[in-house]
Amino acid sequence: MDFGRVAIVGVGLIGGSLGLVLREKGAAGSVVGIDIDEGNLRAAKELGIVDECTTSLEGVKGADLVVLATPVCTIIEVAERIRGLLKEGTIVTDVGSVKGEVVARVEPLMPEGVHFVGGHPIAGTENSGPKAAFSSLFKGKRCILTPTERTDGMALRRVKELWELAGAEVVMMDPRRHDRICAAISHLPHIVAYSLVNTIGDVEDEDLLHYSAGGFRDFTRIAMSPARMWRDICLLNRDEILAVLDLYQDKLRSIRTMIENGDGEGLEKEFERSREVKERIDGRGKG
Amino acid sequence: MDFGRVAIVGVGLIGGSLGLVLREKGAAGSVVGIDIDEGNLRAAKELGIVDECTTSLEGVKGADLVVLATPVCTIIEVAERIRGLLKEGTIVTDVGSVKGEVVARVEPLMPEGVHFVGGHPIAGTENSGPKAAFSSLFKGKRCILTPTERTDGMALRRVKELWELAGAEVVMMDPRRHDRICAAISHLPHIVAYSLVNTIGDVEDEDLLHYSAGGFRDFTRIAMSPARMWRDICLLNRDEILAVLDLYQDKLRSIRTMIENGDGEGLEKEFERSREVKERIDGRGKG
Repeated sequence: MDFGRVAIVGVGLIGGSLGLVLREKGAAGSVVGIDIDEGNLRAAKELGIVDECTTSLEGVKGADLVVLATPVCTIIEVAERIRGLLKEGTIVTDVGSVKGEVVARVEPLMPEGVHFVGGHPIAGTENSGPKAAFSSLFKGKRCILTPTERTDGMALRRVKELWELAGAEVVMMDPRRHDRICAAISHLPHIVAYSLVNTIGDVEDEDLLHYSAGGFRDFTRIAMSPARMWRDICLLNRDEILAVLDLYQDKLRSIRTMIENGDGEGLEKEFERSREVKERIDGRGKG
Repeated sequence: MDFGRVAIVGVGLIGGSLGLVLREKGAAGSVVGIDIDEGNLRAAKELGIVDECTTSLEGVKGADLVVLATPVCTIIEVAERIRGLLKEGTIVTDVGSVKGEVVARVEPLMPEGVHFVGGHPIAGTENSGPKAAFSSLFKGKRCILTPTERTDGMALRRVKELWELAGAEVVMMDPRRHDRICAAISHLPHIVAYSLVNTIGDVEDEDLLHYSAGGFRDFTRIAMSPARMWRDICLLNRDEILAVLDLYQDKLRSIRTMIENGDGEGLEKEFERSREVKERIDGRGKG
């Protein structure tokens, strides 16, 4: 399998890890890393993530495959700026956590003969940057590709092969459906965690944090996720997030009323239900 | 160190683990387990948690130390029923997750010469019952004791020694302050987790649970905690929980407004703040 000349725009955790995969497997003629941060590029070079690097988007010239791995809010802008530099037959894909808006805006930007495929590898750690990259990041994880009726079949197959090479299980899905699912199982939990951690942080009791035990620790881990990335996700997936956030606030209000009214039966039933949901998850999915 | 004859009422995870500590260290003349569940008692006997067992509260007769380790809602009732059976000099302590209500109600019930000390070992797992018990459960964990102005000094020292024997770090605190802290760092996170898991469970998309990744998984773990125990905590620590739940709902509403208004700056600042809180936690406390 040879992806030819691969340009990775944004050599962070995701872009960097994909670079490592391509180089370790010898699946690219060359990997060029493009990043506005020169420190990232130096690190990427030293760590063997890329063969070449540049801070200029001109680096995409001559690429057979371009992977847009910048923060999700800048993907559309980068696509606009590179569209005139791409040769016919180039495949462009992205790794953004929001797909509806990205696909709807990037797809029509691509010139005749250049093929865009939206993608989202569901993988990550609390760390970011090329130094956090590792080639097994995607192993056993899902990667969602979001073809539309305009997507080129061959390009889709190539991008699927790319992620399978990285060890991911590739799933195809409508971009809007992707955003609805991610709003519920990923975006909402992050917002909930940020809200909880900051609520505790606001309580004026210096000793409080001293006692942060079990449960709360898990929340703080999630709330260490990069603020800018989550800002972007909230801005780009606004409608789906608001919809599921409303459901969550309703649920919370209902539980609050039960507590206020001393409704033990209602509370027990509500809490029991979480176990059923968990069992449904364990019976069906994997992370 | 010898605690003499020790009666443990409620041979579950906590009571069972404490029984194992006492027996392994040879720190009790005998340990009698009292439980309404005969299966629990059989298991406790087989696992070496207790020397004797009975389903009758009469088992507390002759005890030098009585540990109330039943679900927190029944501690007060059990205290009422055993008060007439206790000999002079007996120390009674509990392990309930709520202290204000429990201490205020149990302390005055104790006859002259019987000494009550409120306690709460901050330890637990998702599992319950004597089969889940293990003697290192409390090692390195905090145990909060909540003496009042009526608490006997010698009894307090003995209960402190008991938890230190189990490897816990003992901290003294006013019962109401305990409840305020636990409402924030333990009770609220559980309510938040139950609410989130059930919100996701309500969304009518069968595939949703299939994709439950990283962040959400941590929530489901917390939401597997015993429903009845958390019902009891919500009922007994109502006011403190409602107070901190209101703060949380305010925070959530404020973040919702930022998302609705596309306020990227506000969102980034809010999400950044979680990192500061986390750093304060890591700098100060342990679990």
